[in-house]
Amino acid sequence: MGGDHGPHVTVPAALEFQARLPDVEVVLVGLRDAIEARLSGTNPRVRIHPASEVVAMDEPPAQALRYKKDSSMRVAVNLVKSGEAHACVSAGNTGALMAISRFVLKTLPAIDRPAIATVLPNSRRTNTYVLDLGANVDCGAEHLLQFGIMGAMLVAAVEHKERPSVGLLNIGVEDIKGNETVKQAGELLRSSGLNFYGNVEGDDIYKGTTDVVVCDGFVGNSVLKASEGVAKMLLSFLRNEFKRNPWRMAIAWLATPVFNALRERMDPGKYNGASLLGLRGIVIKSHGSADAFAFGQALGRAVDEVRNEVPQRIAQRMLQLQGPALPRSSVQ
Amino acid sequence: MGGDHGPHVTVPAALEFQARLPDVEVVLVGLRDAIEARLSGTNPRVRIHPASEVVAMDEPPAQALRYKKDSSMRVAVNLVKSGEAHACVSAGNTGALMAISRFVLKTLPAIDRPAIATVLPNSRRTNTYVLDLGANVDCGAEHLLQFGIMGAMLVAAVEHKERPSVGLLNIGVEDIKGNETVKQAGELLRSSGLNFYGNVEGDDIYKGTTDVVVCDGFVGNSVLKASEGVAKMLLSFLRNEFKRNPWRMAIAWLATPVFNALRERMDPGKYNGASLLGLRGIVIKSHGSADAFAFGQALGRAVDEVRNEVPQRIAQRMLQLQGPALPRSSVQ
Repeated sequence: MGGDHGPHVTVPAALEFQARLPDVEVVLVGLRDAIEARLSGTNPRVRIHPASEVVAMDEPPAQALRYKKDSSMRVAVNLVKSGEAHACVSAGNTGALMAISRFVLKTLPAIDRPAIATVLPNSRRTNTYVLDLGANVDCGAEHLLQFGIMGAMLVAAVEHKERPSVGLLNIGVEDIKGNETVKQAGELLRSSGLNFYGNVEGDDIYKGTTDVVVCDGFVGNSVLKASEGVAKMLLSFLRNEFKRNPWRMAIAWLATPVFNALRERMDPGKYNGASLLGLRGIVIKSHGSADAFAFGQALGRAVDEVRNEVPQRIAQRMLQLQGPALPRSSVQ
Repeated sequence: MGGDHGPHVTVPAALEFQARLPDVEVVLVGLRDAIEARLSGTNPRVRIHPASEVVAMDEPPAQALRYKKDSSMRVAVNLVKSGEAHACVSAGNTGALMAISRFVLKTLPAIDRPAIATVLPNSRRTNTYVLDLGANVDCGAEHLLQFGIMGAMLVAAVEHKERPSVGLLNIGVEDIKGNETVKQAGELLRSSGLNFYGNVEGDDIYKGTTDVVVCDGFVGNSVLKASEGVAKMLLSFLRNEFKRNPWRMAIAWLATPVFNALRERMDPGKYNGASLLGLRGIVIKSHGSADAFAFGQALGRAVDEVRNEVPQRIAQRMLQLQGPALPRSSVQ
């Protein structure tokens, strides 16, 4: 039900996804009437699971958590909790999704806080995974360590990399740089057994210096939004310059394949689907403005994480770090 | 002497600047031999002020401050202190320049910490001033308030705007968003008498939502470097796509004026010259990799700040905020 377009985008995306991956069963959770209105004819393989409420995009997360017990978001996360669904994908209110997921699913053993991770493109044509992107705005060194582990396990699982490299976002590459929290996090990461690269800077995200970049959620959120802003500004400058006169418009027409390639490469929809990591279950947040293609990418990410057992990998890695003190049975 | 190219860039830039602005007197501070080697023939209007040492680009700031009393950087800042120069421009080690400037010049009354401010382009074709960019990595709410005042006074002075708008970088536009420090800073800014817009997000820098964007130095530095990284990645994608075959190369050749316009607009050299604000004197930091054109821009910024009395404006505004308790004589 969530996102800027609700079922207008999520339902067609789900149908298309279902057709493409017939071994995946999609469950549409939300207001039955709204969903059915978007289902053109019957599709027996897409099931509707009704929910009577909808969390608004601007609703305070605490309110959504406390009062909307039958929201589509809450019901979908409940399905993950009960094991009826392997993952939940939502384009709705990020804060509410995080609050509900954390409350319903709980965090994995030894994980203090879940984090939001996303994939960004880089010059090496690989993927850079960045976390946290805004779930945590006052991170301690321990949290940053946990983000490093969660990010590395995500990459190990979905990119099939044995030992993904982890960078710590800082304002300089030297160990002495940064605030106290980051310095301590660097020490923890160095002795974590992860493939810790050391400090990286903002531009290293797009250079592809490391597979994972770890940062406080305030920093990660600001960096992500600023990056989107720069890309938009640059592309709009380019568009305006090419529209300046008919001659330039003709050149732009000739250059169509170049711009298509650029669009294909930089398309934020391609990278849609942020992972809520550290939970006892898989929850994927789609961008609110996602179109059907982008929402399909988020669905694909969910399936990827299910098949590659991301939460289980994180739990196992945390156990190794913590030693055998934690009971294995607590790992879902 | 500083930067990646030393006098190879700074001396030609100074000569060109001097020729362009004959009413400005440029003093070249550094190793006499190195400077004279770059001065082709005599130019009576460029004076050399000798200094026997050079701060290395990777030298710890504390070491430069303690042991290099006759470095070009220290001597140049001393000239500002003594009144012999109106401003100091350096392409050298940022941390050392900040440490030396702060030690020699001291901060303005009621300013706890200097900040680094720079200009970034935006879609509105105006300038966005962002601070702090890395001088302070653990800012309290009071510091963010001071940055807001310093930024607003800088814009008022050099852009001749009566009441520049000030935004507080946050991870959402609602007042309840962000960490405690940012929430408190929001309250302080709201009651500061500044034209406070409220919270802005990373992309607002490039949308040009406000004239000034205030943030912690860790965040600002990360955002700035990530922005540079995205822009570089995008342009390199574009370049590679246009080089893919001779046909595309021909189209790129036809599109040369477009790319020149884009380069002209996005040229980081054009925006070169970060201000060390909050000091009792004007110090401008040029990017280490600046070429002669870019270094000239930093020199221009210094002249602009001198002519528009930036430190005096900041001091006056702080006095208004603090009430008449502070003695006016302490304002340089």
